[in-house]
Amino acid sequence: MSTAPRLLVVGSVAIDWIITPRAERPEAVGGSATFFSVAASQLAPVRLVGVVGHDFPQATIADLRARGVDMDGLEIVPDGLTFRWKGRYHDNMNARDTLETQLNVFANFDPKLPASYRDSEYLFLANIQPDLQLQVLEQVARPRLVGLDTMNLWIDIAKPSLLKVLGRVDALLINEEEAMQLTGEHNLVKAARGIQRIGPKSVVVKRGEYGALLFHGEDVFSAPALPLEEVVDPTGAGDVFAGGFMGWIARCDSPHGDDLRTAMIYGSTLASFCVQGFSYDGLAELDASRIRARFDAFARLTDFRRAELR
Amino acid sequence: MSTAPRLLVVGSVAIDWIITPRAERPEAVGGSATFFSVAASQLAPVRLVGVVGHDFPQATIADLRARGVDMDGLEIVPDGLTFRWKGRYHDNMNARDTLETQLNVFANFDPKLPASYRDSEYLFLANIQPDLQLQVLEQVARPRLVGLDTMNLWIDIAKPSLLKVLGRVDALLINEEEAMQLTGEHNLVKAARGIQRIGPKSVVVKRGEYGALLFHGEDVFSAPALPLEEVVDPTGAGDVFAGGFMGWIARCDSPHGDDLRTAMIYGSTLASFCVQGFSYDGLAELDASRIRARFDAFARLTDFRRAELR
Repeated sequence: MSTAPRLLVVGSVAIDWIITPRAERPEAVGGSATFFSVAASQLAPVRLVGVVGHDFPQATIADLRARGVDMDGLEIVPDGLTFRWKGRYHDNMNARDTLETQLNVFANFDPKLPASYRDSEYLFLANIQPDLQLQVLEQVARPRLVGLDTMNLWIDIAKPSLLKVLGRVDALLINEEEAMQLTGEHNLVKAARGIQRIGPKSVVVKRGEYGALLFHGEDVFSAPALPLEEVVDPTGAGDVFAGGFMGWIARCDSPHGDDLRTAMIYGSTLASFCVQGFSYDGLAELDASRIRARFDAFARLTDFRRAELR
Repeated sequence: MSTAPRLLVVGSVAIDWIITPRAERPEAVGGSATFFSVAASQLAPVRLVGVVGHDFPQATIADLRARGVDMDGLEIVPDGLTFRWKGRYHDNMNARDTLETQLNVFANFDPKLPASYRDSEYLFLANIQPDLQLQVLEQVARPRLVGLDTMNLWIDIAKPSLLKVLGRVDALLINEEEAMQLTGEHNLVKAARGIQRIGPKSVVVKRGEYGALLFHGEDVFSAPALPLEEVVDPTGAGDVFAGGFMGWIARCDSPHGDDLRTAMIYGSTLASFCVQGFSYDGLAELDASRIRARFDAFARLTDFRRAELR
């Protein structure tokens, strides 16, 4: 690559309080933009847009910078508190209950891009209010590929805005149930096709421990999840998946259909590390060789001999 | 192959009444042994052991024979009625309610193998009471590979018998929730490892629309399900999967680890046809070329470029 690809993410930067059947971690650094950035930065430099309060750890900001995340777009509100989320996971680690949400500085988030960010070519609008997603999108001059995540809340209370921004998006990353909710379909293929008609050519359906599906034009790709004997904390896995997915796309720079398949596996690979620790601990010590070994494990996971009927 | 592999299945032969959100089919031929046989017979000749009453359609018996299913082991009770099951599927087609079960001749099923069946090399004990599974197993002289399916009912009311037969089985095919129930584990990998310690070296975890996992010794393989735009009737898909899986194993005759992976894809391939029709309609018109094309679609579904980090 002659010049580094320019990948931008906007989303939440948070402090989580995580309770699992086995352990508890208060003051865990979280947020969609944080998880995304840590993952994507393994593959391409990232620019972050978000907001925190005075209580957000300076050490984390320094750590993200050291990982190649441009933090110039992180607004620090001196008299405010960081967005906080508290949740408890069920025994099977696949379902969770939200115990508490404090929006804090996130309630008045008004994302303004530093001038240096406006030439970003790859843009990921992580899960925030759709009008804010649109506001960020409009500040980027000529994005080559725009990805977006959303959630049931926005489908419920801000669907017109969501549909508006979706009309300008290349790839939607969405949970299975939310894909159904957005389209009113009971069948996932119909839901994905319905979303493609709204705008995004690519629809990535996240299915947690069951992996993810990519619908790209007419093409369908199934990415497995790696069966793990121990899941420490699934928080952020979807955002890490998005970071790996978009990070690989940015790294390829001129992505074609088959690159999106590989991007799905990088997303899955990084997500499999994420769930093995609290916060982004599972990603903290990664290097190219560990990522390569895990990527190869994914390749082996679905590999089979093409023995055909005669 | 110099001699045809000898594959035997014991299980239910039934008449179902299926209600889906879109349609209803009373008098649909069903039963685990039926679905298994129709699928497996695409790959290898099959011998069936089961019981029906006078109400079971002669035309179906003739049809199964024409497909290469040896029906000498089907007991017909002249003054009895066939096992009947009635169920209704939910909107998403993944969950269903049992509306009615009539055991009929199945209540006194006492499986006796014709002498000609005792040399069977590949044996599938479909989902019936575990003592009956054991009774069949003991009538087969020297099976090379034994597969078994079971259900929550037997884990609840006949666990000692189930554990006994499991100790003599090579491959258990089981639903995800049932694998957890059998072992008391919340984590699927731990559940599979726990089952391997009971006996079966291979554990196939069926996950419906999410595909299936194979744990074979230390190896793990993930088989996707084909995303389908329309599912007509999922009844029998698990039995058809088992038929494809065991059928391929019997066809290979001396199966190695990698053959089991291919067997998983044949199981998935045939199951994907099964759900596209009521009863075994979706399998009725298959030939090698249609199976090959669908197998190739599965290969494409998980194929990705091994682009690695440098």
